[in-house]
Amino acid sequence: MVVLLSVIAVLFSLFLALYCYKSVKKKSEGSDRMKEIAFIIRSGASEFLKCEYKVLFVTSVAVFAVLAIFVSPSGAFCFLLGAFMSALAGLVGMKSATEAGVRVTETARETRDTGETLSVALKGGAVMGLSVGGFAMLGITVVYLVFGLALGQLEAERIAFHSNFLGIGDIPFTMSVSCYALGCSLIAMINRVGGGIYTKAADMGADLVGKSEQGIPEDDPRNPASIADNVGDNVGDVAGLGSDLLESYVGAMISSVVLAIYTYYSKTGSDDPIGYGAMQKIVAYPIMFASIGLIASSIALTLFFIKKKHGNPKRSLNSVSYIAAFLIILFNVFFSLMYFDRSECASLGFRLGRLSPALSSVLGMVAGILIGQIAEYYTSYDYSPTRRVAKASCEGAALTITEGLGAGMSSTLLPLIVLAMAIMTANAISGLYGVGIAALGMLSFVSVTVSVDTYGPIADNAGGIAEMCALDEDVRNITDGLDAVGNTTAAIGKGFAIGSAAFAALSLFASYLYAESGEGSSSGLMLVLNMLDPLVLAGALVGGALPYMFSGILISSVSKTARLMVEEIRRQFSKEPGILAGTVKPDYNRCIAISSQGALKEVRKPAFIAVATPLIAGFLFGSSFVGGLLIGTTLSAIMLAIFTANSGGAWDNGKKYIEKGNFGGKNTDAHNASIIGDTVGDPLKDTVGPSLDILIKIMSVVSLITVSIFSKYNIAALF
Amino acid sequence: MVVLLSVIAVLFSLFLALYCYKSVKKKSEGSDRMKEIAFIIRSGASEFLKCEYKVLFVTSVAVFAVLAIFVSPSGAFCFLLGAFMSALAGLVGMKSATEAGVRVTETARETRDTGETLSVALKGGAVMGLSVGGFAMLGITVVYLVFGLALGQLEAERIAFHSNFLGIGDIPFTMSVSCYALGCSLIAMINRVGGGIYTKAADMGADLVGKSEQGIPEDDPRNPASIADNVGDNVGDVAGLGSDLLESYVGAMISSVVLAIYTYYSKTGSDDPIGYGAMQKIVAYPIMFASIGLIASSIALTLFFIKKKHGNPKRSLNSVSYIAAFLIILFNVFFSLMYFDRSECASLGFRLGRLSPALSSVLGMVAGILIGQIAEYYTSYDYSPTRRVAKASCEGAALTITEGLGAGMSSTLLPLIVLAMAIMTANAISGLYGVGIAALGMLSFVSVTVSVDTYGPIADNAGGIAEMCALDEDVRNITDGLDAVGNTTAAIGKGFAIGSAAFAALSLFASYLYAESGEGSSSGLMLVLNMLDPLVLAGALVGGALPYMFSGILISSVSKTARLMVEEIRRQFSKEPGILAGTVKPDYNRCIAISSQGALKEVRKPAFIAVATPLIAGFLFGSSFVGGLLIGTTLSAIMLAIFTANSGGAWDNGKKYIEKGNFGGKNTDAHNASIIGDTVGDPLKDTVGPSLDILIKIMSVVSLITVSIFSKYNIAALF
Repeated sequence: MVVLLSVIAVLFSLFLALYCYKSVKKKSEGSDRMKEIAFIIRSGASEFLKCEYKVLFVTSVAVFAVLAIFVSPSGAFCFLLGAFMSALAGLVGMKSATEAGVRVTETARETRDTGETLSVALKGGAVMGLSVGGFAMLGITVVYLVFGLALGQLEAERIAFHSNFLGIGDIPFTMSVSCYALGCSLIAMINRVGGGIYTKAADMGADLVGKSEQGIPEDDPRNPASIADNVGDNVGDVAGLGSDLLESYVGAMISSVVLAIYTYYSKTGSDDPIGYGAMQKIVAYPIMFASIGLIASSIALTLFFIKKKHGNPKRSLNSVSYIAAFLIILFNVFFSLMYFDRSECASLGFRLGRLSPALSSVLGMVAGILIGQIAEYYTSYDYSPTRRVAKASCEGAALTITEGLGAGMSSTLLPLIVLAMAIMTANAISGLYGVGIAALGMLSFVSVTVSVDTYGPIADNAGGIAEMCALDEDVRNITDGLDAVGNTTAAIGKGFAIGSAAFAALSLFASYLYAESGEGSSSGLMLVLNMLDPLVLAGALVGGALPYMFSGILISSVSKTARLMVEEIRRQFSKEPGILAGTVKPDYNRCIAISSQGALKEVRKPAFIAVATPLIAGFLFGSSFVGGLLIGTTLSAIMLAIFTANSGGAWDNGKKYIEKGNFGGKNTDAHNASIIGDTVGDPLKDTVGPSLDILIKIMSVVSLITVSIFSKYNIAALF
Repeated sequence: MVVLLSVIAVLFSLFLALYCYKSVKKKSEGSDRMKEIAFIIRSGASEFLKCEYKVLFVTSVAVFAVLAIFVSPSGAFCFLLGAFMSALAGLVGMKSATEAGVRVTETARETRDTGETLSVALKGGAVMGLSVGGFAMLGITVVYLVFGLALGQLEAERIAFHSNFLGIGDIPFTMSVSCYALGCSLIAMINRVGGGIYTKAADMGADLVGKSEQGIPEDDPRNPASIADNVGDNVGDVAGLGSDLLESYVGAMISSVVLAIYTYYSKTGSDDPIGYGAMQKIVAYPIMFASIGLIASSIALTLFFIKKKHGNPKRSLNSVSYIAAFLIILFNVFFSLMYFDRSECASLGFRLGRLSPALSSVLGMVAGILIGQIAEYYTSYDYSPTRRVAKASCEGAALTITEGLGAGMSSTLLPLIVLAMAIMTANAISGLYGVGIAALGMLSFVSVTVSVDTYGPIADNAGGIAEMCALDEDVRNITDGLDAVGNTTAAIGKGFAIGSAAFAALSLFASYLYAESGEGSSSGLMLVLNMLDPLVLAGALVGGALPYMFSGILISSVSKTARLMVEEIRRQFSKEPGILAGTVKPDYNRCIAISSQGALKEVRKPAFIAVATPLIAGFLFGSSFVGGLLIGTTLSAIMLAIFTANSGGAWDNGKKYIEKGNFGGKNTDAHNASIIGDTVGDPLKDTVGPSLDILIKIMSVVSLITVSIFSKYNIAALF
C-alpha cells in the first residue's frame, strides 16, 4: 500500500516534470542575440554547478566514509542516496530554469500575451517543483523498501528499543531515514549558502558600480556583472530554494516517522502493545500522506496547464496552491477514514478519532499559508509597513535603514504566534506525532510551492534577457508584470521556507530528544529537556548566539566577494571605455568566475560551523548541552530569518514603490536612499535568511545521527 | 550581623556620595555664558524628570493598589519602597551630573590639567554610582529588618513551604523582596526606555538637520536641538543606566535569596533539615556579600580621590575597578572562611567547601570584566572589526551598514560563551545558588561601574558646553580626551549592563520556576521546565519574537520623535535666518519639550508590553507557557541587546576613526557614509539595546510575583 501509493506519486510527478521540460524545450529561443545571452547564462550556471558538484562529490565521499565507519554502512548508503536525489533535483530544476528564461522572453515577444507567457514560465518552474517532490519521494521509497517494509524490521525496532536502547543508531529504519536526510541537508547547505553568496555578490557588485557610480539601469548589457547577476538568480533562487524545501520535506517525514515510534511506545509502555499494526500504520502514514500531497499537487499543476486562458497572473498562481491544498485535504480525509482504526486511534491518545492526523496536517497547511500572507503584508508596497520605509527615504538613507530594521523586527511576532498556536493545537489533537504531521502538512504541497517560487527567478531572467537584447517596451512590460508577481510569491515562499524549516527543525529536535532520552527511561517514556539544567541552559545561550555569528560570517562573505566584483567591473570600465559606450562587449565570464570562486570558497566556513558545532559540543559537553544548543539555535535562527527576510523585502519593495513614481520617483534623493536600503537588504534577505533555514536543519540532523555516540563518549561525562 | 554590615555599607557609600556632591558644588561654574547654558541643561533635565516622575507617581499608586488588593499589602509597601529608592537614586545622580558638567569644563579651563578635570568628572559620576549602591542597599536592609530578620519569619517560610506551598506569594520575605524589585524595575523601565527615546530623538534630530543638511558641527549652539541633545545624555545615560543597574543589583540579590531557600530544601527534603542555621546563613549571605562589595567600592573610590595625581585617564579609571574587585575578593574570602561552616557547606552540596559561594562570585566578576573587554574589542577603533566598518564606508553607506550589522552579529558569540561557561562552572561549584551568587558577583562593584559609566556623559556634556561657549582649543582637547575614554567605558558599561541583566534574569527565571514548581512537588524538589512540553515550546517561540517586536516599536518611537524634532529645527531655521548666522539665539526649550513629550508618550506602549505580556499569557495559558515565554524572551533579548549595542558602537567609532583623518578624514564621501552608519546605530545602541535589559528583568519580576495567582487561575486549566 505504502509503496504502491508512493510509486504512483513518484511516477506521476516525474512524468509531469518531463512533459513540462519537453514542452518548454519545444519553444523557440528567439533571435541570435537572445540565444547568445541565454547560452552565456546557461553555461555560467552549469559551470558553477559543475564546480559546486565537484566540491559536493568530495565532501560526500568523505562523509560517506565517516558514516560507514562510525555509524553504520547502511546509513552511509542512505546518505549517498539522499545526496544524489537532492543533487539531481537541483540539476534538473536549474537546467530547466535556464532553458525556460529565454523562451519566456520569446513567448512574450511572439504572442504578446501574459497568460501564454505565464504558462511557459510556470512550466519551467514546475520542473523544479515536481523534481523536488518526485526525487525526494523516490529516495524515501527506496529506503522504506529496503529498511522499513519488512515486518521483521519493524519488530527489530521494537526489540532494539526495549532491550538495549542506545539511541537512534540502533533502529535500522529511523537511522536510515536520518542518514538519507543528512544527504539532502548537505546538498541544501552548499546549494543554498553557496548560491546565496553567489547571487548577492553578483547583484551587489553590479548595483554598486552600475547603478550608484555609473547610473546605468539594472540588467544593462554594458555592465560586466549583469549576466552573473542573472546566473545568480538561477543558482540561488532556483537550485538553492529547491534543495532547501526538499530538505524540509524529508526532515518533516523522518521526524514524523520517529515521533510515530515514540508515540506508540509512550502510549503502550513495554508490556501491553495496542496491537502491532497500529504502530506500522502511524509509521507509514507520513509517507503515504506525502504521496497524497504529491499526487494532489501534480493534479493541480496539470489542471493549470490544461486550462488555456490565464487572466490575472497572481490569481492564477494562487489558484494552483489553493486547488492543491483543497485536493490534499479531500484525499487525506477519505484516506484517513479508510486507513485508521477508531479504537487504535483512541489508544494512541488521538483526541479527534481517525481524523486526528489529518486535522493536524490541515493546521500545518493553514499555518504555512498564514505565515506567507503575513510576510506579504510586511513586504508588499500595498501595505503600510513598506510604504513607511519608502516614506522614510525622503529624510535620507539613515531613516530608510532604521525604518526597515524596525519593520523587519516587528514582523517576527505574528508568524511566531501562528506557529505557536499550530504547535499547541496539533499537540492537543494528536500529541507530538501531530506536531510532526503538521510540519509535513505545511510541506505537503511542496511541489506547487517550489514551482511557483521558481517561476519568479525565471520571469526575472526573462526580463533581464529582454533588457539586454533591447526588445520592445511591450515585451518588457509583460515580463515586468510577471516579475512583480514573482516578487510577491518569492516573499511568501521565503516565509513559507522559514516556517517549514522551523517546524521541521522543531520536530527533528523532538526526535533528537527521543533518541537521547531513550536510554535509561524504563517506564513512562517522557521527553524532557530541562531548561534549568545548567548544561542545557549553557547550550541554549551559546546556541542562541550561533545564528548571529553565522549571519555575520555570511554577510562578510558576501561583501568580500562583492568587493572583488566591484574591482573587476571598475577595471573593465577603465581599461576599455568602449564598454560603457556600448560598442565593446564586456567580459561577462570573468564576473561569473569571480562569483563562482567566491561562493565556493566562502561556503566552507559556514558549512563547517553547521556540521561541526553539534559534534564538537556533543563530544565536549554531552547530549544535554547539545539539546540546549539546538533549541537556542532554532529559536534564534527563526527570529533572525524572519527579521532579515522581511526587512530585506520591505527595502526592496520600498524602492520599487518609489520607482513607481511615489515620493518624487526615480533619480531623486529619496530614490537614492531607497537604493541604499535595497543594497543592504539584499544579502540579508537572499543570503542570510535562507541560509539560516539550513543551519537549523543540518544541525538537528547531524545531532540526531550522532547522539548515540556522543551521549556515551563525552568529556563532561568524565567528571 | 547582616544589618550591621549593611548599615555600615549604606552609611559609608551615602556619606561618600554627599562628600563628592559637595566637593563638585564648591567648584566654580565659570563665565556667565557657561552658567547660562548649564542652567538651561539643568532645567531641561529637571523639567523632564519632573514630568516623568509625575507619570511614575500615578503609575506607582496604581500598581500599589493592585498589589495591595491582589497580592499582599506588605508587598505593596515594599514595591513603593523600591520605587522610591530607585527614583531617589536617579534624581540625586542626575542632579549631580548636571551640576558637574559645567564645572568639569571650568576646571579644564582653569587648570588645563587632565588629571584634575578627570577627578571632578568622576566625583560627579560617583554621586550616581554610590547612590545606586547605597539606596538599593538601604531599601533591602529595611525589607530585611521588617520581614526577614526574625527567626520566626524564616520559620514561617519553612512551614509555608512544606504545609501548603502555593507559590512565592506565601513566603513573606521572598515575596517582599520581589515586590521591592518590582518597584525598582518600574522606575528603571521609565528611566531607561523614556530616557533612551528622549536622548536619541534629540540626537538624531540634531544630526539629521544640523550635520547632514546644514553642515554645522556637533554641539554647535546655533542648532536648536543642541541643548536637548545634552539634556538627553543626562536623562538616558545617567538616570537610565543608573536605575537599570540598580534593578539588576536588586534582582540578583533577591534571586540569590530565593535560590538559597530552594537549595536548602532541595538538599534537606522535608524531614531532615541540615540545621536551620545553615538556611539562615545562605539566605543572609547575598545581602552581606553585597554590603562587602559596596564597602570595597567605596574604599576604591576614596583611594582614587585621595590620590592627587592622575596620569592616563583610561588607566586611572580601570584601576578603580580593579582595586574594587581585588578588595571584594579579599574581604569575601576572609568573611566566608569566618562565616560558613565546613560541614554545612558539604551538606548543601557545595563542592569547594566554605569558599564555594565566594568562588562563584569571582566567576561572575571575571565574566563581567571579560564581557566588557569583548565589547571593547568589537567597538573600539583600535581593533579590526570597527576599522573594517570604517573602511567599508569608502564604498558607500550600504557597505557601512552591512559591515556594521555583520560585526554586531558576530560579536554575540564570545560573550555568550563566557556567560555559558560562568553558569556551568558556578553551578558545578555551588549549584543553582552559585549561579545567583555569580550574578551578584558581577554586580558587586556596581557603584564603581556606574560611577565610571556616568563619568562618560558628564565629560561629553563638558565638551558640549566648551563648544557652545566657544572656549579655547586646549579646553576642548582635554574634554575630548576624557570623552573618548568615556566612549570606551560606555561600551564596556553596556556590555556589563546586558551581561548582568542576562545573569539576573536567568536567576530570576530560576526563582520563577521554583515558585511555580513548588506546588505539588513533595519529595526530591527539582526545577524542571521541559522544552518539549508544547505549552513551553509555544511560549518560547512567542517569547523569542517579543524582543524583536519591542525593538521595532522602540525604533519607530525614536524615529517618530526625531522627525518631529527635524521639523521643529527646520521651522526655526527658516523662520529666523539669524539663528544660522549666529546672531539670534534659537529656542532651545521647544526642542527640549518635544523630546520630553515624545519620550513620555512613546514609553507607554513598550512599558505596557513588558508588564502586561506575562500577565496576559499567564492568565490565558498558565505557568508553563509563561516559563517558555521568559526563556524565549531572555535568550532573544540577550542576543539582540549585544548585537545592537556592538553594531551601534562600531558605527559610532568607525565614524570617529574616519574623523581622526583615516580614509580621507572629515567631509569626504567615506565620512558621509560613516555618519549614516552612526545615525542608524544611535537608536540601536542607546535606546533598543539598553531597553532590552529592562524588558527581560521586568517580565521576570512580574511573572515571579503573579505566578502564584495565574498558576491556579488560567483559561488553559479549564480544558
